[in-house]
Amino acid sequence: MRQEIEQIAAAEQNAYASTGPGYVAGVDLGGTNLRLALADMSGRILARWSSSTAAIRGPEAVIQLIWVGVKSMLHEVAAPPGALRSIGIGVPGITDVKNGIVIATSYLMGWRDIPLRALIEKELNVPVIIDNDVNMAATGEQWFGNAKDAADFVFLAIGTGIGAGIVLNGKLHRGNRWAAGEIGYMLVPGAAEIPAKSGEPGALESMIGGEGIKNQWQKLGSLDESAPPSELNATEIFDRAVDGNIRAKELLCQSATMMAQTIYNISLVLDCPLFVLGGTVGMHPALCDAAQKMLDQWIVSGGPRLVRSSLGTDAQLLGSICAALQIAQASIIPSAVCANSD
Amino acid sequence: MRQEIEQIAAAEQNAYASTGPGYVAGVDLGGTNLRLALADMSGRILARWSSSTAAIRGPEAVIQLIWVGVKSMLHEVAAPPGALRSIGIGVPGITDVKNGIVIATSYLMGWRDIPLRALIEKELNVPVIIDNDVNMAATGEQWFGNAKDAADFVFLAIGTGIGAGIVLNGKLHRGNRWAAGEIGYMLVPGAAEIPAKSGEPGALESMIGGEGIKNQWQKLGSLDESAPPSELNATEIFDRAVDGNIRAKELLCQSATMMAQTIYNISLVLDCPLFVLGGTVGMHPALCDAAQKMLDQWIVSGGPRLVRSSLGTDAQLLGSICAALQIAQASIIPSAVCANSD
Repeated sequence: MRQEIEQIAAAEQNAYASTGPGYVAGVDLGGTNLRLALADMSGRILARWSSSTAAIRGPEAVIQLIWVGVKSMLHEVAAPPGALRSIGIGVPGITDVKNGIVIATSYLMGWRDIPLRALIEKELNVPVIIDNDVNMAATGEQWFGNAKDAADFVFLAIGTGIGAGIVLNGKLHRGNRWAAGEIGYMLVPGAAEIPAKSGEPGALESMIGGEGIKNQWQKLGSLDESAPPSELNATEIFDRAVDGNIRAKELLCQSATMMAQTIYNISLVLDCPLFVLGGTVGMHPALCDAAQKMLDQWIVSGGPRLVRSSLGTDAQLLGSICAALQIAQASIIPSAVCANSD
Repeated sequence: MRQEIEQIAAAEQNAYASTGPGYVAGVDLGGTNLRLALADMSGRILARWSSSTAAIRGPEAVIQLIWVGVKSMLHEVAAPPGALRSIGIGVPGITDVKNGIVIATSYLMGWRDIPLRALIEKELNVPVIIDNDVNMAATGEQWFGNAKDAADFVFLAIGTGIGAGIVLNGKLHRGNRWAAGEIGYMLVPGAAEIPAKSGEPGALESMIGGEGIKNQWQKLGSLDESAPPSELNATEIFDRAVDGNIRAKELLCQSATMMAQTIYNISLVLDCPLFVLGGTVGMHPALCDAAQKMLDQWIVSGGPRLVRSSLGTDAQLLGSICAALQIAQASIIPSAVCANSD
């Protein structure tokens, strides 16, 4: 796999050979937001750009929006369009890195078998690398964040969706069909006993994903007129728990238990010492602390260490920049720098 | 890791250099039985030997028994003791392959931090390699069984205990503390909600391990005077299910569900296409068929394929022989032949 990706990088580089100093773009393509960053060839971010994708679902419209953002950032640093060397894109779904195809995104976007790399390369005329967004974030954490220099770790993202980026021996493990780490479907005690149907939120996701927590909160609120407002989001609910609200504390405890069970199950398979927690829900300090306490109680011989991401939502962007740098200039970035192959 | 094991192999080989044709021994050290096989340098089994270990718990007594077995097999093929080149040993517990230490066996044997490799080398004066028995079995399956030529697969053993040998990119993944694949502790719906205490059977093991199934059967039997005898073992209970006994069918269905949930959870992490089922319980055809049907229903896009081991209890022995061959004569067995490093 590593060799294959290096071959892609070499081919992409030859096809789009250019000279002089340049820039790379990292893209975090989310279900609700598109975030871009422009970096120089050392990976330093020089400009940022973002836009809502709430009303935009088709790949063509997303590509046009990426193009608008890239031009805007290049303009900001007074560089011509030809100065862009490559783009790295994190996609919220199962992604065939080798062939540049988005196999399936979550139920929110609904993409299936979209040849995103080819479509963007045709439009923007630069080499592109695409990967699952959580894998991109894991790469970001490995090179710039709390997993710096860690040979083995799991980046666990809990936001609206849930996913894991798995790094073993310094390299991403992507799985046989690019679906390793799709743990939003995990079956743990208290969640559904059989998996969700295709296209529906996974068993775990519907319990401790952002929407799942919100839904449970709303159900609890409807039973209790003295409860805080029902339109709180997951992090606000956890904040209420910290403030002492009993129902919110129950929900925090349940979420921490299921997160700890999930981390425990992943650890049984991989025996991995470090979990970096990302995503708006996963990064909540109270959730992280509660899950760590449970794991420490369960595994007396020393369970995995949980640390909150220090990069936050920049993890995806930085990982995408790292991947873009790799395909832009393999000669100045040793292949080992971007461990995005397995 | 691979390099480290090759270094061990080279050091062991130099320390015990010998000439002429020779033999290697594979050892399957179980909680109730010790099984040995003697093979020539091509891996062909020439003799076998076995003994009960029911009353034997201490490492010294086990080592003496191995020595008795090895001498008996060498005698059987009319070879002198000096013809033995190396021994590979599969141990039922967490095993530090690099340092040759049995970190912890199951509650049945109760070993902790036993320097088994050094103890046997001192006694038998040949190079020794030790590894977890399920890892040894995975190696056996990879080179002689139903995972032949598979780059990625999981060997799932369900007997009294439950464990998985995980092969990724052709190599065993052993984990950071040699504990990858200890899935007898997995938390799935219907099992315990928090992990078992240290030294107790794992949450999953107590439900679908051989003893767990037997215990549940006995409880069911005590409620129903018309039930078949309560002293049946797990495979006999599954046979009764095939014959139509309703309580046995319920237990088979519950076991298949939990096995399918476990395989599903492992698949979410690893995205692995093939599971080879071993162990006396795991190999029961009715269990395998029922779990495969569930997985096919749950994962419409094509879930993992389950196949029963074609080697049975020989998987461990053959894997141990393979590992022994590697350290005996790395020059005639390419290092790639025995993928027992990660």
